[in-house]
Amino acid sequence: MRPAICRLAAPVLIAVFVVALGAAPNVGADEGMWLLDQIPKLDQAKLKAEGLELTPEQIWNTADGTGLASAVVWLGGCTASFVSPDGLIVTNHHCAFPAAQYNSTPENNLIDKGFLASDRDHELPSPGSHAYVLEGFEDVTQKVLAAVPEGADDTARFKAVEGVIKRIVKQCEAGGNLRCRVAAMWGGLSYVLYRQLDIRDVRLVHIPAEGIGNFGGDIDNWMWPRHDGDYAFLRAYVGPDGKPADYSKNNVPFRPKRYLRISDRGIARDSLTLLLGYPGRTMRYRTSFAVQEAEEIRYPENIRLLGEAIHTLEQQSKASPAAAIKNASAIKYMNNGMKNNQGMVDGLRSSHLLESKRRDEAELMKWIQADPVRAARFGRVLPEIGAIYKAELANARRDLVLRFMYRTSRLLSVANTLLKLSEQRAKPDLEREPGYMERNLPRQRHRLMRLQRSLDVPSDHAVLRLMLLEASKLPADQRIEALDDLLFKAGGDPAKEVDTFLDTLYAGTRLQDEDFRMSLFDAPRADVVGSGDSMIKLALALEPLREANRTREQRVEGALSRLRPLYVQALHEYRGGILYPDANSTMRFNYGTVSGYQPRDAVRYFWMTSLHGVLEKDTGVPPFNSPQALLEAARTTEPSPYLDNSIKDVPVDFLATLDSTGGNSGSPVMNGAGELIGLLFDGNYESMASDWRFDPVLTRSIMVDIRYVFWNLDRVYHADRLIREMGDPFRTLQH
Amino acid sequence: MRPAICRLAAPVLIAVFVVALGAAPNVGADEGMWLLDQIPKLDQAKLKAEGLELTPEQIWNTADGTGLASAVVWLGGCTASFVSPDGLIVTNHHCAFPAAQYNSTPENNLIDKGFLASDRDHELPSPGSHAYVLEGFEDVTQKVLAAVPEGADDTARFKAVEGVIKRIVKQCEAGGNLRCRVAAMWGGLSYVLYRQLDIRDVRLVHIPAEGIGNFGGDIDNWMWPRHDGDYAFLRAYVGPDGKPADYSKNNVPFRPKRYLRISDRGIARDSLTLLLGYPGRTMRYRTSFAVQEAEEIRYPENIRLLGEAIHTLEQQSKASPAAAIKNASAIKYMNNGMKNNQGMVDGLRSSHLLESKRRDEAELMKWIQADPVRAARFGRVLPEIGAIYKAELANARRDLVLRFMYRTSRLLSVANTLLKLSEQRAKPDLEREPGYMERNLPRQRHRLMRLQRSLDVPSDHAVLRLMLLEASKLPADQRIEALDDLLFKAGGDPAKEVDTFLDTLYAGTRLQDEDFRMSLFDAPRADVVGSGDSMIKLALALEPLREANRTREQRVEGALSRLRPLYVQALHEYRGGILYPDANSTMRFNYGTVSGYQPRDAVRYFWMTSLHGVLEKDTGVPPFNSPQALLEAARTTEPSPYLDNSIKDVPVDFLATLDSTGGNSGSPVMNGAGELIGLLFDGNYESMASDWRFDPVLTRSIMVDIRYVFWNLDRVYHADRLIREMGDPFRTLQH
Repeated sequence: MRPAICRLAAPVLIAVFVVALGAAPNVGADEGMWLLDQIPKLDQAKLKAEGLELTPEQIWNTADGTGLASAVVWLGGCTASFVSPDGLIVTNHHCAFPAAQYNSTPENNLIDKGFLASDRDHELPSPGSHAYVLEGFEDVTQKVLAAVPEGADDTARFKAVEGVIKRIVKQCEAGGNLRCRVAAMWGGLSYVLYRQLDIRDVRLVHIPAEGIGNFGGDIDNWMWPRHDGDYAFLRAYVGPDGKPADYSKNNVPFRPKRYLRISDRGIARDSLTLLLGYPGRTMRYRTSFAVQEAEEIRYPENIRLLGEAIHTLEQQSKASPAAAIKNASAIKYMNNGMKNNQGMVDGLRSSHLLESKRRDEAELMKWIQADPVRAARFGRVLPEIGAIYKAELANARRDLVLRFMYRTSRLLSVANTLLKLSEQRAKPDLEREPGYMERNLPRQRHRLMRLQRSLDVPSDHAVLRLMLLEASKLPADQRIEALDDLLFKAGGDPAKEVDTFLDTLYAGTRLQDEDFRMSLFDAPRADVVGSGDSMIKLALALEPLREANRTREQRVEGALSRLRPLYVQALHEYRGGILYPDANSTMRFNYGTVSGYQPRDAVRYFWMTSLHGVLEKDTGVPPFNSPQALLEAARTTEPSPYLDNSIKDVPVDFLATLDSTGGNSGSPVMNGAGELIGLLFDGNYESMASDWRFDPVLTRSIMVDIRYVFWNLDRVYHADRLIREMGDPFRTLQH
Repeated sequence: MRPAICRLAAPVLIAVFVVALGAAPNVGADEGMWLLDQIPKLDQAKLKAEGLELTPEQIWNTADGTGLASAVVWLGGCTASFVSPDGLIVTNHHCAFPAAQYNSTPENNLIDKGFLASDRDHELPSPGSHAYVLEGFEDVTQKVLAAVPEGADDTARFKAVEGVIKRIVKQCEAGGNLRCRVAAMWGGLSYVLYRQLDIRDVRLVHIPAEGIGNFGGDIDNWMWPRHDGDYAFLRAYVGPDGKPADYSKNNVPFRPKRYLRISDRGIARDSLTLLLGYPGRTMRYRTSFAVQEAEEIRYPENIRLLGEAIHTLEQQSKASPAAAIKNASAIKYMNNGMKNNQGMVDGLRSSHLLESKRRDEAELMKWIQADPVRAARFGRVLPEIGAIYKAELANARRDLVLRFMYRTSRLLSVANTLLKLSEQRAKPDLEREPGYMERNLPRQRHRLMRLQRSLDVPSDHAVLRLMLLEASKLPADQRIEALDDLLFKAGGDPAKEVDTFLDTLYAGTRLQDEDFRMSLFDAPRADVVGSGDSMIKLALALEPLREANRTREQRVEGALSRLRPLYVQALHEYRGGILYPDANSTMRFNYGTVSGYQPRDAVRYFWMTSLHGVLEKDTGVPPFNSPQALLEAARTTEPSPYLDNSIKDVPVDFLATLDSTGGNSGSPVMNGAGELIGLLFDGNYESMASDWRFDPVLTRSIMVDIRYVFWNLDRVYHADRLIREMGDPFRTLQH
């Protein structure tokens, strides 16, 4: 599945910039994650010939809510869309997974058996879930760049940009109910302010059994052919006044400006598809230095550490059903990350991207140096970027282990958050780190409360043990000194030292206790430090290194925000054409065609899977365990409005040449008329390195066919209420 | 790959029977391994419409050598064919593997690097290799059945049939130079005598490097898409008088009555293909009782024991290059067997054959019992067969472990052979067990001499250890008493007992010494027993159980030779149509069309692979290590007469709907004009259970395209001598 994008800790900087139009676009047919206001600049005649029945405004206009983009919802990690006038939202199963997990107990496991609210009163709250609806955007490049003082060094530059963005956001959000973001495009060539309505009462309406919504699980993940009914329904609620509100029984369904109609026309090979969504992160304009670091160090090390952490959590999950529920989400997330990283490595290697980037950069440098004016503007850019990456290698292993400690141990992460909170809150809002500004405190509070649902202390202990053992093995020039002082200085057997230390650590912490934890949420730093909690003490000991790293990263970010725009500018002048910026969790549009592919010699993948393929894969054992109700429905031969004529069966998933990445999960995929035909939920394995380089021959996005969603609603769940609410597109209800 | 069929130890009983013709054949389009004299009874009009340009006689006539069948060679486990007037034979790489292994040393490893004889004088002898050429066949059913006395019990029946067959064979071979076989068809409904010219000087002419001829190795084995250049060339030699002779420098190439022309026409989808070969064993007429035993006990236990034995041998091979060469063939053979058995289990399960056989048998029983005459003839058949299978289960685990001891330890097997030899040779020839009759002694002698090339004593020790530990774990009612007496009676730690026992055993045997071993070959039993060799002592201790099993098996075989023909007769009267007998290593004909398949939902396999697919798979690491010469040739863009027009590349392997099994390896596959277009070397994984049931949708045979063979001869090996000898079909030589 497309990984969800975590945006909380480091709110993404955001903008729109359109490179002055050259001749024909020099990107591949379906490559491109276009900014909304780039849509009018695409070749409309070509799009019309391919089947587009809409004007650009009918796609992108969010000002009056007439564009499709107004029906698109950002869930903070996933994309979704409105499909009824009453705020009904459709997205992926895995995007509704946290809501189902929150509402599950060992006795009543909604993940396993699925859930369908019998009526609106039984739709389940999911505290901490938000739905963001785009209200508008504007270019703020001048404002941002004007804030950088003449002659600022890289750290000053970083701080100036961060500071002005915080001010712009604060001003934007002053009226309440809005969530605003400033996003840097092309690494800082331009900056765009996005205004989103922030709906904070989002409820779970329907999630199919895991044997439908996650059919194939980690085995099929990223693979084609796929047979995953990866859908779920949520609903946005607002106060009786129509404005966003915290959860309350009295809230009413949100009435969106725009919702998507369900297509009843089916899907044909080679037909046009449209995609609107929030792709998270691509690295298409990165240099060979970044490719090398990723391919040779970061991904392989991630794969290794994730593999070990997953193994450890699985052992814990085997031991207790309660731990199994609590670890499920983390295991799923980490497995996905590991497979993704493996696919990246495989893809980078097989596409020889490093070599081709080096070749391209050598040619670019030649072109730059051929002209003294260009040499003066761009001559230092590539060497400087290279020097930055080289310097970062010095502590790469140490910093990776450090990051993994916080990434895997929830209690250490909480301790760190509480310490940071107490320190940051003492400052004026605009001087705080972005994650600790007032606007983000409710989310931090929810995160800390919600932790209870996913925290298993023995599992936490086990993964932290793993990472401390990793730390014990770091080379002499990359030690984490605080840990050496606490554990390894004596020179004893590291495993014994770690076990002794952890026994004391977990005996001396109360952070797993919700009341205790939340009592520190608003406490001043003296109280947090003075609590004597052993986990907080550990976080405190590690704080100087974390802060030093942060300072270094600010300098690097400042430098890159200076260099990357120059690099893209050089590239553009060299190549011409129209360029889209790398994905950065802002809304993008792209289009593609329905199409299979040939993964290797003599193997051809058809573009659509079918219900009989579900039966073919079903073993009764997870992850290939279709619920009984599905098996029975699949075996009835009742005439069906869901059948696809070309395969004479109910279609399940399909492929298109759409350019997508993590964050696009749940995105609506539409036909040329803007009607919903499917939900994007994955990319194919062969395309994983497309985050770095789009390969039009092999890159495909994987969608669940809306007809399969409705077949499930109708034949498996008898969800007449929802079918009616979406206008009964397949005319299956009695009237 | 199709496994080679071992026929030495238990010479197959053989015959021809054609069920009186009913209406249309009730078998699937390409199902059927037809006896040669059934060919005229096939639908000639249909075959002609599909592209057959030959009369039945042009295919099967062996009397005057004008039929294609006279060009087909049985290598004793593999099939091959003559492709020149000078006895040049083409077969699979893996069929020439033993000849290459015999001629290899650690310093000069022909398996690894391949071999091409520079001229005839340098073609390499391969003692023990035979080439059998079919000279004729005749029905001997009356003669065989007349030998069974009225009222004989099952054991007497077995002995009478075995006795008369031995006499028929002896008479047939009396003139010398012939190898004769009597084969039972349909389990004994009819018996056929086959006369084959026995050529015993067969030399290695050319075998490509393993990185071509076994490209993909065990990973790709049984898989499609395939990129295996699975070919090799041998040559048959005879004495200056044109008659078979032992190897001698003075021998001359054999001049076959018929050899195959190489096709230069290419291959088209859906075109007709003809197959002639020696399929080893199918079980298409077996009952549900046999399916159950195979699916639930035999295959799973085989898979487990083979897996452990392979692992053990691989560990030994890692330790020394000499062991690696000696174990290579056994590992390959066992890996193939294990994957085959796994495919069988998968196929039996997924096709639900057990349930469908049970349903069919219940219907058959209903039909039998609906008529008193039928009930009297056939009513007891199925229950009796069921009772036999049930009784056999009582000692199934014990007998499997016992068999595996002899199967894996070559020294124990040799000890047993020497004991048996000395005992059997004391009897008149016609009273001996078939494997020890005079006609088979030269082969036994060769086997024992040749052993030196594949015997690694530490490996032998290691696998026997494995099997003794298995024996220690047998349940109380299935113990091998001789081993309990020798090893486990004291009740100590079995592993320790086994190690102590084996240390003594291997210290006390000299059978690894060729001179010692061969000195016992002709020795009387008293000398063999009296040699005091510890391995012979172990074989002696196990002999009573082996003999008791043999007696039991004779009774079972006798009973089945009475029941199976009745069962097939009942089936035929019930169903009508024309039936082919199960495969039994006699020559068969079948036809099919060139065709890809759909292994699962949304996946389509194209029918042909290409040279660029070889490059795609090549990693430089075995088993994906193409030799440098191939890589260089593949990258040149020289115009090529080998290109296939539809893929604009050199074709490598292709698929057809041919019905084949182990023993068909190396079989010639011909176009409608009888020209050679490819060599069969494997079946697809999805078809492995086709030994039990032919599924026309999924069953495919895999061939190496003759154009790929010639591309290798021409561009990689520059084997102009061989190309010229085969008539330069692609006109690549300078004249």
